[in-house]
Amino acid sequence: MKYIETLREGERVADIYLCKFKQSAMTKNGKPYETVILQDKTGTIDAKIWDPNSQGIDDFEALDYIEVMGDIISFNGILQLNVKRIRKCREGEYDPKDFLPVSTKDIGEMYAELTGYVNKIKNEYLSKLVNSFFIDDEEFAKAFQYHSAAKSVHHGFVGGLLEHTLGVVKLCDFYSKNYPILNRDLLFSAALFHDIGKMKEISRFPENDYTDDGQLLGHIMIGTMQVAERIGTIPDFPAKLSSELQHCILSHHGELEFGSPKKPAIPEALALNFADNTDAKLQTMTEVLGSSDGKPEWLGYNRLFESNIRKSSL
Amino acid sequence: MKYIETLREGERVADIYLCKFKQSAMTKNGKPYETVILQDKTGTIDAKIWDPNSQGIDDFEALDYIEVMGDIISFNGILQLNVKRIRKCREGEYDPKDFLPVSTKDIGEMYAELTGYVNKIKNEYLSKLVNSFFIDDEEFAKAFQYHSAAKSVHHGFVGGLLEHTLGVVKLCDFYSKNYPILNRDLLFSAALFHDIGKMKEISRFPENDYTDDGQLLGHIMIGTMQVAERIGTIPDFPAKLSSELQHCILSHHGELEFGSPKKPAIPEALALNFADNTDAKLQTMTEVLGSSDGKPEWLGYNRLFESNIRKSSL
Amino acid sequence: MKYIETLREGERVADIYLCKFKQSAMTKNGKPYETVILQDKTGTIDAKIWDPNSQGIDDFEALDYIEVMGDIISFNGILQLNVKRIRKCREGEYDPKDFLPVSTKDIGEMYAELTGYVNKIKNEYLSKLVNSFFIDDEEFAKAFQYHSAAKSVHHGFVGGLLEHTLGVVKLCDFYSKNYPILNRDLLFSAALFHDIGKMKEISRFPENDYTDDGQLLGHIMIGTMQVAERIGTIPDFPAKLSSELQHCILSHHGELEFGSPKKPAIPEALALNFADNTDAKLQTMTEVLGSSDGKPEWLGYNRLFESNIRKSSL
Amino acid sequence: MKYIETLREGERVADIYLCKFKQSAMTKNGKPYETVILQDKTGTIDAKIWDPNSQGIDDFEALDYIEVMGDIISFNGILQLNVKRIRKCREGEYDPKDFLPVSTKDIGEMYAELTGYVNKIKNEYLSKLVNSFFIDDEEFAKAFQYHSAAKSVHHGFVGGLLEHTLGVVKLCDFYSKNYPILNRDLLFSAALFHDIGKMKEISRFPENDYTDDGQLLGHIMIGTMQVAERIGTIPDFPAKLSSELQHCILSHHGELEFGSPKKPAIPEALALNFADNTDAKLQTMTEVLGSSDGKPEWLGYNRLFESNIRKSSL
Amino acid sequence: MKYIETLREGERVADIYLCKFKQSAMTKNGKPYETVILQDKTGTIDAKIWDPNSQGIDDFEALDYIEVMGDIISFNGILQLNVKRIRKCREGEYDPKDFLPVSTKDIGEMYAELTGYVNKIKNEYLSKLVNSFFIDDEEFAKAFQYHSAAKSVHHGFVGGLLEHTLGVVKLCDFYSKNYPILNRDLLFSAALFHDIGKMKEISRFPENDYTDDGQLLGHIMIGTMQVAERIGTIPDFPAKLSSELQHCILSHHGELEFGSPKKPAIPEALALNFADNTDAKLQTMTEVLGSSDGKPEWLGYNRLFESNIRKSSL
Amino acid sequence: MKYIETLREGERVADIYLCKFKQSAMTKNGKPYETVILQDKTGTIDAKIWDPNSQGIDDFEALDYIEVMGDIISFNGILQLNVKRIRKCREGEYDPKDFLPVSTKDIGEMYAELTGYVNKIKNEYLSKLVNSFFIDDEEFAKAFQYHSAAKSVHHGFVGGLLEHTLGVVKLCDFYSKNYPILNRDLLFSAALFHDIGKMKEISRFPENDYTDDGQLLGHIMIGTMQVAERIGTIPDFPAKLSSELQHCILSHHGELEFGSPKKPAIPEALALNFADNTDAKLQTMTEVLGSSDGKPEWLGYNRLFESNIRKSSL
Repeated sequence: MKYIETLREGERVADIYLCKFKQSAMTKNGKPYETVILQDKTGTIDAKIWDPNSQGIDDFEALDYIEVMGDIISFNGILQLNVKRIRKCREGEYDPKDFLPVSTKDIGEMYAELTGYVNKIKNEYLSKLVNSFFIDDEEFAKAFQYHSAAKSVHHGFVGGLLEHTLGVVKLCDFYSKNYPILNRDLLFSAALFHDIGKMKEISRFPENDYTDDGQLLGHIMIGTMQVAERIGTIPDFPAKLSSELQHCILSHHGELEFGSPKKPAIPEALALNFADNTDAKLQTMTEVLGSSDGKPEWLGYNRLFESNIRKSSL
Repeated sequence: MKYIETLREGERVADIYLCKFKQSAMTKNGKPYETVILQDKTGTIDAKIWDPNSQGIDDFEALDYIEVMGDIISFNGILQLNVKRIRKCREGEYDPKDFLPVSTKDIGEMYAELTGYVNKIKNEYLSKLVNSFFIDDEEFAKAFQYHSAAKSVHHGFVGGLLEHTLGVVKLCDFYSKNYPILNRDLLFSAALFHDIGKMKEISRFPENDYTDDGQLLGHIMIGTMQVAERIGTIPDFPAKLSSELQHCILSHHGELEFGSPKKPAIPEALALNFADNTDAKLQTMTEVLGSSDGKPEWLGYNRLFESNIRKSSL
Repeated sequence: MKYIETLREGERVADIYLCKFKQSAMTKNGKPYETVILQDKTGTIDAKIWDPNSQGIDDFEALDYIEVMGDIISFNGILQLNVKRIRKCREGEYDPKDFLPVSTKDIGEMYAELTGYVNKIKNEYLSKLVNSFFIDDEEFAKAFQYHSAAKSVHHGFVGGLLEHTLGVVKLCDFYSKNYPILNRDLLFSAALFHDIGKMKEISRFPENDYTDDGQLLGHIMIGTMQVAERIGTIPDFPAKLSSELQHCILSHHGELEFGSPKKPAIPEALALNFADNTDAKLQTMTEVLGSSDGKPEWLGYNRLFESNIRKSSL
Repeated sequence: MKYIETLREGERVADIYLCKFKQSAMTKNGKPYETVILQDKTGTIDAKIWDPNSQGIDDFEALDYIEVMGDIISFNGILQLNVKRIRKCREGEYDPKDFLPVSTKDIGEMYAELTGYVNKIKNEYLSKLVNSFFIDDEEFAKAFQYHSAAKSVHHGFVGGLLEHTLGVVKLCDFYSKNYPILNRDLLFSAALFHDIGKMKEISRFPENDYTDDGQLLGHIMIGTMQVAERIGTIPDFPAKLSSELQHCILSHHGELEFGSPKKPAIPEALALNFADNTDAKLQTMTEVLGSSDGKPEWLGYNRLFESNIRKSSL
Repeated sequence: MKYIETLREGERVADIYLCKFKQSAMTKNGKPYETVILQDKTGTIDAKIWDPNSQGIDDFEALDYIEVMGDIISFNGILQLNVKRIRKCREGEYDPKDFLPVSTKDIGEMYAELTGYVNKIKNEYLSKLVNSFFIDDEEFAKAFQYHSAAKSVHHGFVGGLLEHTLGVVKLCDFYSKNYPILNRDLLFSAALFHDIGKMKEISRFPENDYTDDGQLLGHIMIGTMQVAERIGTIPDFPAKLSSELQHCILSHHGELEFGSPKKPAIPEALALNFADNTDAKLQTMTEVLGSSDGKPEWLGYNRLFESNIRKSSL
Repeated sequence: MKYIETLREGERVADIYLCKFKQSAMTKNGKPYETVILQDKTGTIDAKIWDPNSQGIDDFEALDYIEVMGDIISFNGILQLNVKRIRKCREGEYDPKDFLPVSTKDIGEMYAELTGYVNKIKNEYLSKLVNSFFIDDEEFAKAFQYHSAAKSVHHGFVGGLLEHTLGVVKLCDFYSKNYPILNRDLLFSAALFHDIGKMKEISRFPENDYTDDGQLLGHIMIGTMQVAERIGTIPDFPAKLSSELQHCILSHHGELEFGSPKKPAIPEALALNFADNTDAKLQTMTEVLGSSDGKPEWLGYNRLFESNIRKSSL
C-alpha cells in the first residue's frame, strides 16, 4: 500500500483509500465534476474526477473505501489526484486501521487494565452502576474502546477515549492512595464516566466529527444525563451519592468558562478536574512535540500553551 | 398582629411568628440557652430563650409557627426578643401570607395568563410536553405557583417563579411577533421551562434556601434533565427538537461564566437569554428602587449594576 | 441589468454599476493602469483598465455611476472585469436602489410608525426636543431615513438606522407597559435619539464608512452632544431631565468596555441598553442565518456569538 | 484653635468647626436628637445634640461654620462630642483654610506657572480657546484654582485640580521636547483642559462630593462638552483640530474600562494619557506613603497598587 | 499545660506560652499599658498588662517563651487575658512543638523518603547540584525540614515545606513513569527545588511571616537565583540544562497572573506546574474540610475554590 | 549599491547583500536546491539557487555577506531572485550599516549623555555597581551600544537598547526633580539596568532573534540575576538596597500579565514602570506613524494600541 504522505508529483496511483468527503461541483465554465478527499492513516489528499463518465463514479459515497486509479499533479503548489477510474471496495479488501489514526497502545490490554479498576469499586451502588456500562453492556464497551476523545487536539484517534480515560483513572488511583480526603469509589466512578458523553458528542470513525447533539448540548451535559438515567434504574441508589457523582462529571472542566456549569465543590470533583487536565495536557504536549526528533529546538508559538514550546535537552 | 418592623425597645410582645431557625447554644459561662430567629413578612428578629425551663421550649422546630411572649431589648444596638413563654400553633391559627414575602400580583390570574400562552403552542410534541407539566400535573402546577425564583435578589417571594416566568414568556411573545426568524412554539416552550429547575434548586417556603442538589447541580442542569426525562415518555418526539429545547434551557444564562455550559447557538436560545436577562434585571431594579419614595436620590453603589443608581426625575 | 453575483467567466459585460473605489497603480514592469471596484446591490467585482488610453477613463471618480464595457476573466480563481470602455452616467440613467443594500421594509411606513411614537411623548420639554429633530427638521428627517446603522454587521443598509431605531422604540414601548418603574416619555426620547450620532459617525451612502469624527469621538459622544446642544435652545428645559436623557444615550452600550463611559444608573438607561442589544443581536442573527435556506444546518463558528450557529428545525 | 486630631476623652471643647453634616434622628426610645459631623483640616468627629432645647440648635445648616461647646466622650471605642451649646459663626470669624485640606504648594504661584504654559501656545485657535478659559474668564480661573481633583484618592484638596493640571502640563512639556512626533500646542491645550469637567463632576468645597451630573455624565463627558461648546464661539476654528482636542480629552483615561469611550488614536492623546496617569499615581503614592516617617516599613496591601507598598531605604 | 483553645471566662491561668507580639500602647486617658499576643499550637489569645509595674514586664520580647499568671475575662465578647505576673523562660523549660503548628507526619521519615528520590537522579550534573543542597549542606537540610510552605493557606506549619515538596516529587515520580515525554532527572530536580525560595520569602517559625525580600522579590525569583548561583560552582554544568532547570522553577505557577514570569515551555515545566497545583489544592481542601466531622455538610463559600464546598457522603 | 526595495521584475542584479537565512530543499520532483534570504537595510528578498553546481554555493553560511549575480523574477506575485553566481565577501568590502537597521541618532553622543547620568549617582554602592558595568567594563559598554531593544516592535535596531535606555533615564531624571518621594540614585540605577537582560534575551545583529535563554528565562529574569551577581562582588552592599534595585528591575513591566513576577511596591519601581512604558509606546507610535508623510490619515487598526491610529493635523 502506498501511503498518502509518500506520494510525489507525476506518480501514478492505483490503491485503496478511505473516501472522507465527496461533493459535486461545477467549473467556472459550467462543467460538472466531483471533488473527493481521500484519507489513510498518514494523511489526506484532494482528488478531482473531471470526467463525468469516469467509471465507478456514482457507485460510492463518503466514508466508503474505494480503489482509485489516477495521476498525481501539483496545483497551486499542492498535490492533487486526477482520478481516472474508481471502484468501491467490499469489506475484507482493506484493514480500517490502515486508514484511521489509532492509539499506539493495545486497545485490548488497555481495556483489561481499565476493568481492573472497575472491579476495585466496593460501594455496591457505584459498582452496579459502573458494571452496567463497562462490563455488562457489550455494545457500549465495544464502542467505548473504538471511540476517539477529540476531533483533533489530544487523543483524537481510535482508542483515544479509552486511553485518556485509563490515564485519568490511573492518576485518580495515585491521588486516592496519597490524599486520604478522597473517596476511591466515588473518584474511580467519576473518572470512568467523565468523558462518556463524547461518544455522542463526536460521531464514530471514520467521520469523527461533532454531532448536532454535541454542538447543542456538549459531552458534559450528555454524559451526566446518561449516568443519571442509568442510576434511575438501580433501586435505592442513594440520592446524595447520585448528585455527587453527577456533580463530579459536570464540574470536571474546573471552570465555568471551560464549559462546566458548576465549579468543583467536593474533593473528588477537584481531583477529577486535576487528573483530566493533567492527562489531557501532557498527552497534547506529547502529540505536539512527538514529531520533532528529540532535539531541543523551538516549535514556535502554541496557542493552547500560550508559549513557544520545545523538548528539553536531556 | 404586631409586625416585626414596628417593634421598639422596651415593648412586650405576645404574638404569632414563623420560627425560621432554632439552635441550642452555651453561654461563655457554660449555661445552655436557645437561639431562635422569628420572621414575618416585614422582617426577622433574633430571639433568645435564656431559661431552659421556659414553657414550650421543646415543643417546636424550625419552620413551625409559634406564639411567643417576651420583651424587646437592645443588645449592641440591635433589637432582640427575650422570650418568656412559647406555644406551637396549629394550622388555621395563622395565615402563611402574613409571614412570607408574596408577589404583589394575583397568583391565580398570573397562572391563568400563563396557561393562555401554553394553549398557543401548536406543535403537537411541544404542546403535549408543556401540557404534561403545566396543565396535567396538578402537583407541579401548584408547586410552581407557590415557588420563589431566588433565595434573595429578584423574585425571591411566593409566586416569584411564576411572575418571572410569565414576564419572560410575554417578552418572548413580543419578540416572536417582531422577529420572524424566531419560532414561537419552541420559544414559548423554552421560556416556560427555563427556570423550573429552581423548584429543586431552592427549597419551598418558608425555608427558601439552596438544596444539596441545587448546590451540586444547579437549576440549569436540573431543569434540562427534567424536561429530557419527560420527553422520553412522549412517543416519536423529534430528536432534533428535543435537543434544541434542551439547548435553549441550558444556554439561557448566555455566557459560560454565568453557568451556562453552552452559548446560545440558535435564534430561540438567544432570544430566551435576552428575555430572561431583561425581566430579571428590570425586576431587580424595581425591587432595589422600590423602597425609595419616588424622588431621584442616589441609593449608593449597587454591586449587581456596578454603579450608583437612582430613579429618574419624571 | 446584469447583477454582479450572476457574472461568469468569459461573459461580456455592458451595463451600469456604481464605482465604489478607483486608484491608479503600476504593474511590476512599470506600466500604469487603473484599479476599480464596481458595486451593485448584489455584490462587488474588481475591474482593471489596462490601457491608459481607454475611452472615458479620466472622466469619472469613485462614487460615480458608470457604464462599462468589458470581459469577465478569472485571475487566481477570482473573477475580474477587463474594462475596454467606460462612460460616466447622468442622474436619471440609474436607480440608486439597484446599487446599494436597502431595507426590506418600506421606509416611509417605518418613519410614519416612528413618528407615531414621537407623538405619544407627553412631557412638554421632551416633546419639543424630539419634535425639533424628527418632525420639524426636514433635512434631519430625510437623512435619518436614508442612513445606515453600521458599516457592516447589523442594519448596514439604506434605512437601517430607521429600522433599528424603530425596533428599539417598539421594545421600549413594550417594556414601559410591563414594567411600571420605567417612565415612558424619557425612555421613548432616549430610544429615538440613542443612535443619531451614527449619522455623523458613518458617512452617507454610497460611501457608508467611518468618518474622521466617527473614529475620534464615536456615535455615543456625537449623539449626546447633539442632543445637549439642542436642549440648550429650549427655554427652561429641566436640568435633571437633560442629564438623565444624556445619561441614557451615553450608557446605552451597557458596559464601559463596549464604549459607554458610564454604566446605566437609572431604570430607563438600563431598559434602553436591553432594547438596543436585543434588536441588534436578533437582527444580526437574522442577517447571518438569512442566506441559509431554512434547514437546521450548522454555519460554523460566528465570532460575535462565540459559537457555531444554525437555525432551529421548526 | 484645638485641632480635632488632638482631642482626647474627657476634654471640654469650645471652638469653631465646620459642620459637614447635620441630621435629625430618633433614639430607640423615641426621643429626637441631632447627629452632626464636625470637620477641620485635621479630621472629623461625630457630635450628638441630645437635648432638643440646646441653644442654637436650629440656627445652622450643614456646611455652616459653628462654634460648639461640649464634652468629649468615648462610645464603643470611638470619640464623640456631646454638644451643650452651639452658635453659628459669621464670615470673618474663621479662616476656611483651617477647616479644609489645602495644597501644600502656593496656589497663586502654581497658577502663574500654569498661565506661563498657556502663553506658549502658538496656534491662534487653540490660543484663543485656552485664553478664553484660563485668562479671560476670571470666575472660571478663580474656581479652577480653588477646586479639588477628587473626592478622596489623589489631589483631593483645595488647589488639587490646579496642582494636578500643572503636573500634567509639565510632563507634557517634557514629552514634547523629547518626542518630535508630538505637537506641543495640541498637547498643552489638551493637558490644560483634560480635567476641567471635574469642576462640575465634584461640588466645591466644603462639600467636595459627586454631583448629580457627575454621576450621570462624568467629568470626561462634561469637560469635552464644555470645550466643544466654547469652540463653537470661535470663528473658523478648524473642524479637524476641534475633533482632535475633544478626542484627547475623552480618551485620556486610556482604556475603555477606565471610562474613556475611545482609546487614544493620535500621539498627543497617548501622551496625555501617560502624563495624567504618571502624575496621578505618583501623587497617590506620595499621599499614601507621606504619613509614614521615612523608614522603609511595609504599609500593607494597597488596593490601587494591588501590592503591599513601602518607601525605599535611601 | 492548659491549651489556649480550652480557656474559659473567669479562669485563672499560670502557664507557659509563646509571645507572638508585644507592643506598648496608651489608654484613651493617657495611661501606658502593654498589648501582648500569646500563642500555643491550638491558637492565640490577646493579653493586656495594665499595670506598668507588673513584675517581669520589661524582661521579654516578642518571640520569647514566657510564663504568665493572670485571669481570663471577656471583652466585647472576645476572651482576653489580664496579666498579673510574667517571667521569661529558659530553653529547656518548654517544647517548641507545643507552641507551633506542626506537620502531622514524621519529619525525619519524610526527609528520608525525599532523599530517596534525590538518589534516583542519574544525570551527574543534576545529581551534584541536588546533593549539594539536600545532602551535603546540613544547615540547609535542617532549615528545609523545619520550614513552613506558607504564612497561612496550605502547609503553613513546621515541616510544611518538606511535606509539600515530597508530595510534589511523588506526583512527578508517578508522571515520569506514565508519560515518556518527561525526563525524570530534570523533573525530580525541578520538583525538589521549586519552593526553596520560600525559606527566604517567609521567616522561620515562630515568626513565619513575609520577609522584606519575600515581598520585594518573591520565592520564585529567590529560588531560581539560589539554584543559578550554585550551578555556577559546578564545573561544566551544561548551559542548556541550567536554563531548563531555572525555567521549570520560574514557570511553576503556570500563569503570568499567578506570578510566574514565563509560561511552561517544556514538558517538565508543565508537569511541575500540575504537580504543584494538585498537591497544594488537595492539601488546602484537606485543611479546610478537616475540621468538619465527616458529614457532608456545606461549609459555605470558599474564595480559593470559588464555590461552596463540602465533603462527599461516602 | 542597489537597495532591495528598488528592485523590479526583469532586472539583473550583481551586488553585495547580507545572507539572513540559508537552507537546502528538494523540489516536488526530487531535485535539490538552495533557499536563501538576502537582506539590506531597506528590506529582504527571497533567492533560489536552482543549479547545485552554481559557483560559490557551498562557500557561505547564513549571516555571511555575499555578492550575488542573478535575475529578478515574479513568482505568485512576489519578487524572487534567481541566483546564477555567488561569492562570499571579506570584511572591508561592505559597511554593515548598509545592511542593518540603525538608530537615527548618533550612538557615541547618546552614550556620552548616558554616562553623564551615571556620574550623577552619589550613593557609593550604586555608583560602584553602575560604573562596573557602564564605565569599567568596555566589552559590556560596546555591546550595549550596539544592541537592539527588540526583535521588531520598538527600538528594534542597532543602538536601540541604548536609545531606549537613555529615553527612560531622561524621563526618570525629570520625575525625580518633580516628585520628591523618588530617590534619584535608586531610580537612575534601576533605569540604567532595567533592560540589560535584553543583551542575552536577543542575539546580536545581524541575527537579532530570541535566544534559548531569552525564551526560557526572559530579559527581566536575566537582567535581575546579572545585577544580583555583580552586587555580590561589592563589599558591604546594603542588603535592603540590593533587594530594592532588583525589585525595580523585575517589576518594571508593571503588571503580572506583562511578565513581571511582582507589581511595583516602592515609588521608584512605579516611576520606572511609567518611564519604560511612556518611552516604549511613544517610540512605537513614532515608528508606526513615521512612514506616513505627515498628513492626518488613518493607518488602520493597530493591535498594540487597540485602535485605528493617525497623526494629528497640526
